[in-house]
Amino acid sequence: MSFIATPQSMHFDEALPLQGGGSIANYDLAFETYGQLNADKSNAIVVCHALNASHHVAGCYEGQPKSEGWWDNMIGPGKPVDTNKFFVIGINNLGSCFGSTGPMHTNPATGKPYGADFPVVTVEDWVDAQARLLDRLGIQKLAAVLGGSLGGMQALSWSLRYPDRMRHAVVVASAPNLNAENIAFNEVARRAIVTDPDFNGGHFYEHGVVPARGLRIARMIGHITYLSDDVMNQKFGRQLREGMALKYSTQDVEFQIESYLRYQGEKFSSYFDANTYLLITRALDYFDPARNHGGDLTQALAIAKAKFLLISFTTDWRFAPARSREIVKSLLENNRDVSYAEIDAPHGHDAFLLDDPRYMNVMRSYFDGIASALNTKEAA
Amino acid sequence: MSFIATPQSMHFDEALPLQGGGSIANYDLAFETYGQLNADKSNAIVVCHALNASHHVAGCYEGQPKSEGWWDNMIGPGKPVDTNKFFVIGINNLGSCFGSTGPMHTNPATGKPYGADFPVVTVEDWVDAQARLLDRLGIQKLAAVLGGSLGGMQALSWSLRYPDRMRHAVVVASAPNLNAENIAFNEVARRAIVTDPDFNGGHFYEHGVVPARGLRIARMIGHITYLSDDVMNQKFGRQLREGMALKYSTQDVEFQIESYLRYQGEKFSSYFDANTYLLITRALDYFDPARNHGGDLTQALAIAKAKFLLISFTTDWRFAPARSREIVKSLLENNRDVSYAEIDAPHGHDAFLLDDPRYMNVMRSYFDGIASALNTKEAA
Repeated sequence: MSFIATPQSMHFDEALPLQGGGSIANYDLAFETYGQLNADKSNAIVVCHALNASHHVAGCYEGQPKSEGWWDNMIGPGKPVDTNKFFVIGINNLGSCFGSTGPMHTNPATGKPYGADFPVVTVEDWVDAQARLLDRLGIQKLAAVLGGSLGGMQALSWSLRYPDRMRHAVVVASAPNLNAENIAFNEVARRAIVTDPDFNGGHFYEHGVVPARGLRIARMIGHITYLSDDVMNQKFGRQLREGMALKYSTQDVEFQIESYLRYQGEKFSSYFDANTYLLITRALDYFDPARNHGGDLTQALAIAKAKFLLISFTTDWRFAPARSREIVKSLLENNRDVSYAEIDAPHGHDAFLLDDPRYMNVMRSYFDGIASALNTKEAA
Repeated sequence: MSFIATPQSMHFDEALPLQGGGSIANYDLAFETYGQLNADKSNAIVVCHALNASHHVAGCYEGQPKSEGWWDNMIGPGKPVDTNKFFVIGINNLGSCFGSTGPMHTNPATGKPYGADFPVVTVEDWVDAQARLLDRLGIQKLAAVLGGSLGGMQALSWSLRYPDRMRHAVVVASAPNLNAENIAFNEVARRAIVTDPDFNGGHFYEHGVVPARGLRIARMIGHITYLSDDVMNQKFGRQLREGMALKYSTQDVEFQIESYLRYQGEKFSSYFDANTYLLITRALDYFDPARNHGGDLTQALAIAKAKFLLISFTTDWRFAPARSREIVKSLLENNRDVSYAEIDAPHGHDAFLLDDPRYMNVMRSYFDGIASALNTKEAA
């Protein structure tokens, strides 16, 4: 069991302007903190989350020994991101279904749940909301912003929107934007949800139903893309679920991989919000810092001042190493301080959440370096 | 415009025993033939089709100039598989929705459409049905069996079930079985169809509806896997559908790739049968000639006598070159006569239907060789 984590919430009255136009006011952000903020408030790290995750990054909730945070292997006392040295902040993004204000909450304009009317939020909007939360905590400059996948996009965006408010950006298994295939998978998942009759145009809450069929399909597609071909063959291959005999059925489970995917889909549809799924996949699609620079990523990253660590995984076909290398190349062209590790791991995109020792060592060593620099500065 | 093709149909009273147990009687097979059967009936080629295809392999239907068969670029007078030399037979598989008896036809046992009660058919069943049709045509030994993707699996199966009835097996963009990832994509597509409320347990015909939502999702998933990442980025990239301005919407089309996939899904759902989709994807899942040989493909292929041509495409991630090489290796271990071409083509799995000149040349040269050998034999 890990340490005890305690969720907190902060309310924001003032309107947050959004990239898509308009704004959102009167919202709450759920967050957690681990470790102690030091005297000069220089040891804070923001951890940004990806699709199916939240502010609950590490630790367990009181009396719930199996409630480890999603990056508990990476973050905690004595872990690669050591909470004996750092003050780590996990923030749940706007539009999520895990605590911060989202589509299932009441729209003050109508008195009904937002549903599909929740504003379309972007990576940039999330980063802005996170920065405001830091203002309230009195933290001006972060030691680092850290995230994997969509979380890595937020870390990258932080370095562009708040270049003076962070020393390091750690971008794991991420990309400077989604390619066509990634958008395509997101779109299929969204169509499965939106065309589920129980979606009711996004206002299913009022009908007492959830578009579980669509959510199951969305999650099954997601799961396929999170795993590598190799690891799927190793874990499941062509193994039958029930011994050796084929049933010859088009609808019953026959292969183990089918059973696994159905289970994952079922579980996901029981807790994840359909509108949140749409919002988060769209935020992924939209992220593209080079867009306003005619597609020139080097120009887009010129404003960044942070030092960077980028990590990718060889079998990750969703956010392939080549995409991380694009970011590395553009940072180098701007003469930025960049470290890059390409980890030879078999687990596909999921690798960023797993315990590969080389990966953990790279992270530990990088964050130890950040901590040492802080101490030197404090001692000076 | 191509030559005129004329669909034919043949009725079979006698029961065909099926791999899954039971049998099917009183069925029709739709087929087409191109070219002339020679005097000793030695120049016949069977072309096996994949998921979204049929007996209409080449040529156009009378008065329908845009009705080219699905492999019209490959097969016809003067084409790589030259119908001036060969008698080419396209046969629509049992369970299809393009002419042969399928789930939408009347089940003699109930007087209603088969629907989900249509027997689960396998690659081996299709091959057996094709062999019976050849019996009726009085063709004992084929010059070749030819197919791509699932059609390639049938060509391979032919060489194992009827080793004395064919001289050549041409297996394009295929595999000795599906891997876990392929089964996974099939399963998601099937779940999308089966959980569509309009599926009605597979008996939607009686309700006057079709599970179009599920079919659309299935087709969208399929399309992503038929294309390579590269070609998708080239064709669509992150292009917006409407100029430069983002709409910031989770449900509207924003990117060209979304528009393309929605269109493909819509089109497919208007003509393809949902039960057929289930049957064909299941036949793909089940195909595994090594299964009854403890997974030993070399042992499984020992019975084959044909000469083989295998072709794969470098960017095909659905039926990757490595899978074709497994077949090649096992054939070589059996001292069989094998030619193998790995074509460096950017188009992914779809490449087997396209006009890559190296691919076309390999095919032309191989089939010219078959034709020459026939002539030599005739002259002798």
